[in-house]
Amino acid sequence: MDQLTLANPVFVTYAIAASIMVLKIMLQGWITVARMMSNQAGFVSPEDAKAGLANPKPRAGQLEINDDVERSRRIHRNDLENIPAFLAIGLLFVLVAPPLAAAQWLLYGFVAARLAHFAAYSSAQSHEVRASFYTIGSLIVIAMAVWVLAAAIAHL
Amino acid sequence: MDQLTLANPVFVTYAIAASIMVLKIMLQGWITVARMMSNQAGFVSPEDAKAGLANPKPRAGQLEINDDVERSRRIHRNDLENIPAFLAIGLLFVLVAPPLAAAQWLLYGFVAARLAHFAAYSSAQSHEVRASFYTIGSLIVIAMAVWVLAAAIAHL
Amino acid sequence: MDQLTLANPVFVTYAIAASIMVLKIMLQGWITVARMMSNQAGFVSPEDAKAGLANPKPRAGQLEINDDVERSRRIHRNDLENIPAFLAIGLLFVLVAPPLAAAQWLLYGFVAARLAHFAAYSSAQSHEVRASFYTIGSLIVIAMAVWVLAAAIAHL
Repeated sequence: MDQLTLANPVFVTYAIAASIMVLKIMLQGWITVARMMSNQAGFVSPEDAKAGLANPKPRAGQLEINDDVERSRRIHRNDLENIPAFLAIGLLFVLVAPPLAAAQWLLYGFVAARLAHFAAYSSAQSHEVRASFYTIGSLIVIAMAVWVLAAAIAHL
Repeated sequence: MDQLTLANPVFVTYAIAASIMVLKIMLQGWITVARMMSNQAGFVSPEDAKAGLANPKPRAGQLEINDDVERSRRIHRNDLENIPAFLAIGLLFVLVAPPLAAAQWLLYGFVAARLAHFAAYSSAQSHEVRASFYTIGSLIVIAMAVWVLAAAIAHL
Repeated sequence: MDQLTLANPVFVTYAIAASIMVLKIMLQGWITVARMMSNQAGFVSPEDAKAGLANPKPRAGQLEINDDVERSRRIHRNDLENIPAFLAIGLLFVLVAPPLAAAQWLLYGFVAARLAHFAAYSSAQSHEVRASFYTIGSLIVIAMAVWVLAAAIAHL
């Protein structure tokens, strides 16, 4: 069991991909915050519509849906539907010792697909563009899960 | 540290359970997509209501809530509230070296409970049926978390 | 690779922090259930409004939004936006062998920040109070991700 060490290039690949994807999830939260601040709208809790440092001039309607803020929340939800599963299966993938080239294509490919998905969703590209990048990311996670499942079943 | 190897039957159990649960999360996304396509409704982004390959004949109301699509989204959200926590605590559970029988009951039991929950929710069984399977899955995650916490505190 | 063993105090720190955070996610689901039961409202699926053990006296409006229940769901969603990323990056952080003191500050600091966030959100404190605890938790996850990324890149 020396897969999970920085001396293993497959683990290094996973560590880079995983930390970038964790940063992506966290940054999406801050993008939502930035849009709530700049629009002074799209808040979700009644107490957020009260006066305070983050809301110096309360006005009616701040709790209503704001398109800009909602778009960021939808991107975030899509991240949550894909990235935690990737993080878990990616680690298992490292543990079943795949070839380095396969690991690099799948792990970096997922990162590239999700960043492209983010760019397409943020800028409201056509559904087909966004869906293509979603599909690539999803198929990579499915491929790794099938790979791990096959390797594990072979050891039953 | 030779827990995380396919030579360890507890790890094999976890790898099988985890990869099935990752596939479950990903497939739920595709079920939502399939229902949006077949109903041509339940879209969430304004650009999705425009004409395109995935939406050859746009019509009013495609951005309104569709019961079929929403049900799949609720199942997905319920997965996200349970499966990532399971994936993380399951790995820690393997690392504290539980008896194989306990690992098999808990890990495969979670998978069975979640698949039954999916079947009950998809077919709109009574709340009590769905809640029973949710409860089994939830209690298994809680049991593993308490087990890991107790093992770790004993090493403080 | 003997990082992931209870003989390593950094791993013990992570195991304690991670299992508490997994319990936090699961308990939030039960808080939502408890609020739905006590208010007999805030249900989300049509079948939940039918008579049954969990709903002895159905009445109109049970499927409408209930503020109490929604608050619990928002807390849960905020957990899902932060805790799975923490669980994944925390394990990688252990694997790059940080100093024990840094691990204790960051891992226990995250747990403390999230529990304080929960207390502030549950009791509807001002937005600024809740946001401060959110910020601490988020910055800790970002710090660990940058740490892991830097360590991994140094091994390319």
